Amino acid sequence: MSNSDIFIGEIIGTAVLILLGGGVVAAVVLKRSKAQNAGWLAITFGWGFAVLTAVYMTGALSGAHLNPAVTLGIAIKDNDWGNVPVYVAGQLLGAMIGAALVWIAYYGQFHAHLTDPEIVGDPADKAIEGPHDGAAAKAGPVLGVFSTGPEIRNVWQNLATEIIGTIVLVLAVLTQGLNDSGKGLGPLGGLMVALVVVSIGLSLGGPTGYAINPARDLGPRIVHALLPLPNKGGSDWSYAWIPVAGPLIGAAIAAGIYNIAFA
Amino acid sequence: MSNSDIFIGEIIGTAVLILLGGGVVAAVVLKRSKAQNAGWLAITFGWGFAVLTAVYMTGALSGAHLNPAVTLGIAIKDNDWGNVPVYVAGQLLGAMIGAALVWIAYYGQFHAHLTDPEIVGDPADKAIEGPHDGAAAKAGPVLGVFSTGPEIRNVWQNLATEIIGTIVLVLAVLTQGLNDSGKGLGPLGGLMVALVVVSIGLSLGGPTGYAINPARDLGPRIVHALLPLPNKGGSDWSYAWIPVAGPLIGAAIAAGIYNIAFA
Amino acid sequence: MSNSDIFIGEIIGTAVLILLGGGVVAAVVLKRSKAQNAGWLAITFGWGFAVLTAVYMTGALSGAHLNPAVTLGIAIKDNDWGNVPVYVAGQLLGAMIGAALVWIAYYGQFHAHLTDPEIVGDPADKAIEGPHDGAAAKAGPVLGVFSTGPEIRNVWQNLATEIIGTIVLVLAVLTQGLNDSGKGLGPLGGLMVALVVVSIGLSLGGPTGYAINPARDLGPRIVHALLPLPNKGGSDWSYAWIPVAGPLIGAAIAAGIYNIAFA
Amino acid sequence: MSNSDIFIGEIIGTAVLILLGGGVVAAVVLKRSKAQNAGWLAITFGWGFAVLTAVYMTGALSGAHLNPAVTLGIAIKDNDWGNVPVYVAGQLLGAMIGAALVWIAYYGQFHAHLTDPEIVGDPADKAIEGPHDGAAAKAGPVLGVFSTGPEIRNVWQNLATEIIGTIVLVLAVLTQGLNDSGKGLGPLGGLMVALVVVSIGLSLGGPTGYAINPARDLGPRIVHALLPLPNKGGSDWSYAWIPVAGPLIGAAIAAGIYNIAFA
Repeated sequence: MSNSDIFIGEIIGTAVLILLGGGVVAAVVLKRSKAQNAGWLAITFGWGFAVLTAVYMTGALSGAHLNPAVTLGIAIKDNDWGNVPVYVAGQLLGAMIGAALVWIAYYGQFHAHLTDPEIVGDPADKAIEGPHDGAAAKAGPVLGVFSTGPEIRNVWQNLATEIIGTIVLVLAVLTQGLNDSGKGLGPLGGLMVALVVVSIGLSLGGPTGYAINPARDLGPRIVHALLPLPNKGGSDWSYAWIPVAGPLIGAAIAAGIYNIAFA
Repeated sequence: MSNSDIFIGEIIGTAVLILLGGGVVAAVVLKRSKAQNAGWLAITFGWGFAVLTAVYMTGALSGAHLNPAVTLGIAIKDNDWGNVPVYVAGQLLGAMIGAALVWIAYYGQFHAHLTDPEIVGDPADKAIEGPHDGAAAKAGPVLGVFSTGPEIRNVWQNLATEIIGTIVLVLAVLTQGLNDSGKGLGPLGGLMVALVVVSIGLSLGGPTGYAINPARDLGPRIVHALLPLPNKGGSDWSYAWIPVAGPLIGAAIAAGIYNIAFA
Repeated sequence: MSNSDIFIGEIIGTAVLILLGGGVVAAVVLKRSKAQNAGWLAITFGWGFAVLTAVYMTGALSGAHLNPAVTLGIAIKDNDWGNVPVYVAGQLLGAMIGAALVWIAYYGQFHAHLTDPEIVGDPADKAIEGPHDGAAAKAGPVLGVFSTGPEIRNVWQNLATEIIGTIVLVLAVLTQGLNDSGKGLGPLGGLMVALVVVSIGLSLGGPTGYAINPARDLGPRIVHALLPLPNKGGSDWSYAWIPVAGPLIGAAIAAGIYNIAFA
Repeated sequence: MSNSDIFIGEIIGTAVLILLGGGVVAAVVLKRSKAQNAGWLAITFGWGFAVLTAVYMTGALSGAHLNPAVTLGIAIKDNDWGNVPVYVAGQLLGAMIGAALVWIAYYGQFHAHLTDPEIVGDPADKAIEGPHDGAAAKAGPVLGVFSTGPEIRNVWQNLATEIIGTIVLVLAVLTQGLNDSGKGLGPLGGLMVALVVVSIGLSLGGPTGYAINPARDLGPRIVHALLPLPNKGGSDWSYAWIPVAGPLIGAAIAAGIYNIAFA
C-alpha cells in the first residue's frame, strides 16, 4: 500500500466510522429524531455496523486500521513504525470530517435540541450517554454525540475500563491473521471485528462509553469545540486525555500478550 | 445478463424489498399488529434483512440493484448506460407491486387503524415514523408504511441527509468488488450490504427516515395515492422530490469519490 | 441421503427448531421467566436463530428442510416426490417432540402462569402473541407458545398473509442454489435462511404470527391438546387449517415463480 | 496443539468470555451504567458475542473449547481423554480471571450499587437476572453478574433446563465438522456457535439464566465469594452444583446422540 492510499483510505474510513458512530448517538439522544430513545442496543449495534461499513469500504485501500490503537498494536507486533504517522494523521483528520458530517445530517435536530426552551435543562436528557458530570453537564447529551464521558468520574477506573476494552479489541485484530489459513478473510474479517466491537460496547461500555480509539474521541471533541452550536456547553477537556491514553496503553498490552502467547 | 432477466429480477427483488420493508413499518406502527411498538431497532433490522432477502433471491438473476441510485452509481463508475432504463423500470414497477402486497398482508390492520374511532387522531400514533408534519399529519403513521417523511421539514437539511446516507450506501456497493479477491463474494456480499443498510438506518435515519432509494419512496407513494384506504390523508407530494433527488445526487457523488480515490 | 438419515435428521432438526422457537415465546410471555417482556425483536431473532441452529446441526444429515412447505416447494421444482412422505413424517414427529421439550424446560413457568390467581385472567397477558380471540382467549398467551393465532380473525386475510410469507421463505430456499457457484454454501446458507426467517417475522408476522410451516403449527397444537396443563383452554382447532393450507399454497406458488422466472 | 498452547489459549479465551459475558450483565443490571435496563436482548447478544470474540482470538491456539461441557462432549465423541485435565484447568482459571476483570472494569458501579442507601433493598433491582430467591436475594442482582440462579427454585426442572440447553450447544459443536466439506470453517464456525449461544439464551435462558458451562458458573462464583464487595450477600452455594452437573450430563447425552445419529 502506498502512503497516499493509506492516507486517503484512513481519511475516508474514519470519516465514515465517525459519521455512522456519532450519527447513531445523535439519532438516539437528540429530540425530534425518529430513533429517539431507541436505546443502548441501537447505539452498540450502530457503532459496530459503523466499523463494518468503514472496514468494508476501505479495507483493500489502507488496511482499515481507523484507530491509532490498532495502528500502535500492529506496529509493536511487527516492529515496523514507518507508516504510523500517515495512519494516525489520516485517522484524526477523518474523525474530524466525520463529526462535521454528523452535524450536517442532524442540523435541525441539534438546533431544536439546544434552543427549544422545553428541552434545555430537561433532566431526562441525561438518561443515555450519561450526565457527563462536570463542565459539560449543562448541554445534556449533545457532547455525547461527539465524544465519550464517564458515568462515574474516577481516573483510575475510567482508565482501567478503557485499557481493558482496548486489549480485547486489539487482541482480536492481532489474532485475526491466525484464522485465515492463508486464504485471506475478505469481508468476513470486517464482520468479525464489527461484532467484536458490538461485544465490547455491550459488555464494557457501561462505565465510560467505550472510546477504545483515540481518534474517535479526540477528533470529534475538537470539532465540538469549534462548531457554532448554541448553548453547547464545554467540551470537557479535563477528561479528554483518558480516551487517548487508555486505548494506547491497552494496545501496547495487547501487543505484548500477542507476542508472548500467540506469536 | 439478458434484458429480460434484469427486468424480471429487478421486479421480483424490489417487490420483495418493499413487501418486507414496508411490512416492518406496518408491523410496528399499525394497531392490532403483534409487533406494535417493537421500535426503531425492529424497523432498521427489518429494512436491512429485507435487502438481504431480496439480494439473496435475485443477485444471480439481475445483479440485484433494486435501487435507481445503485444503478446510477454503477453506470457512472463503468460509464455504461445501456441497461439503466430496464433496471429503473423494473425497480419502480417492483416497488409498486411490493407496496400493494403490504396492503394485502396487513389489510385488516390498515382498516382497523384508519376506521376505529379510538385510533383516528390519537396523538400517540405519531410516535414512530414521525408526525409527517404538513398535509399527511392527519392520517398518522399510515403514509409512513409507504414512503418517507421528515421529522423537521427543511429542504436543505432533508436533502443533505438523504445525500449523505446514499453516499455511504453506494460507496459500499461500488467498493464491494475490491473485497472479493477475484473469487466472488456470493451471499456474503448481500449480507454485508444488508448490514450497511441497517447501519445507515440506525445512524442516519433519524431526520428523514432514510429513503436512500428513489424507487423505494416514489413507487409506494404512488400506490398510497391509488389505494382505496379510508381516511388515508394526502400523499405529501410536496416532499416527494427530495427522496428522489437526494439519492441520485448522493449516488453521483459516491461514484465520483470512487473514481478518484479507489479506482 | 438414505431414508433413515432423512427421517432421523428431520426429527432432530425439527425438534430443535420447535424447542428453540417455542422456547423463545415461552421465555417472553410466561410469568417468572427472566426474559419476560423482552419483546417482539427477541421473538423474531429467537425463531430465526432456532432455524440457524437446527439447519447447522442437520443440514449434512437430511438437508434440513424442517418444514413441509419447503419439502413441497423442492418436490415441485425438481418434480421428485419420492422422499416427501419420510420428510413430512419426520418433521411432524420432530415438531411434537420439540413442543414437549419446551414444556419440560419451562415446566415451573407454565404451572405458575396457569395457576397463580393473580395471573389467570390478567388482560396484560394478551399483550404479546395476541388475544387469540375466540376459544383460546381465556388461557392468555399459553397456546401461543405452541401454535399461531391471528390478531384479527379473517379467513381470507389470514390465509393471504401466510401465503405471502411462505412465498418469500420458499423462494429464498429455492434460489439458494443459484448463489453458490458450485462451491456449496456450507453454513453460510443456513445463516442466510435464518436471517430471511427473521425478516419474515419482523415484516410479515404482525397479523398472524407467521407459521409459514405446517409442521411448526400443527405438531405443537396436537401436543397442546394432549398435555396435562391446568386451565390451558382450547387448542383453537377452528383456526388450525389456515397455518397448514396457507404455507402449502405459498410453497406451490413459489415453486411456480421459480420455474418460470429463475429456472 | 501442545499442552501449553491449550492451557494458555483456554485461560485467555475463557477470561475474555467471562469478562464480556459477566460484563454485559454488569452493564445492564448495575446502577450508574450507561447500559442500565438495556434488557434481555442485550444480555443474550452480549453473551453470544462474548463467545464469538473469545473463539475468534483463541480458536487457532487451543481449539477454543472454553467450556468443560464442550471438552467432555468432544472427549466422549473421540474417546480421547488425554487433554481433558489441561483444558478444564485452563477454563476454570480463565473464568476466575475474567470475573476479576469485570470487577475492575465496573469497580465504581459495583461500589455505588452496593453502598448507595437508595439502591440497597430496592425491589426494582430484582427485575433482571431474577430474585435469586434464597440466601442471595438481599444483594439484588450483583451475584447475577458472576453466576446463574433460577427464577423458580426446583431442582429437577432447573437441572432439566440446563441439560436441554447444553445438549443443543454441544450437539451444534459436535456436528460442526460435518459442515465444512474438509475446507475448515475458519471464523465462520465461531460466528455460527456464537449465534447458537444467542439462540439458547433467548429460548432456554428464561428459567435458570443458561449456565450451560460449568466453568462459566463455578469460577465466577468462587470469585464472588472471595472479592471484598460490601453488602454482597451469600454466593448461593446450595444451587452451585446444578450449573455444573446439568451441563456435564447434557454434554454426555449430546455425545451419545451424535454417536448414534450422526457418526
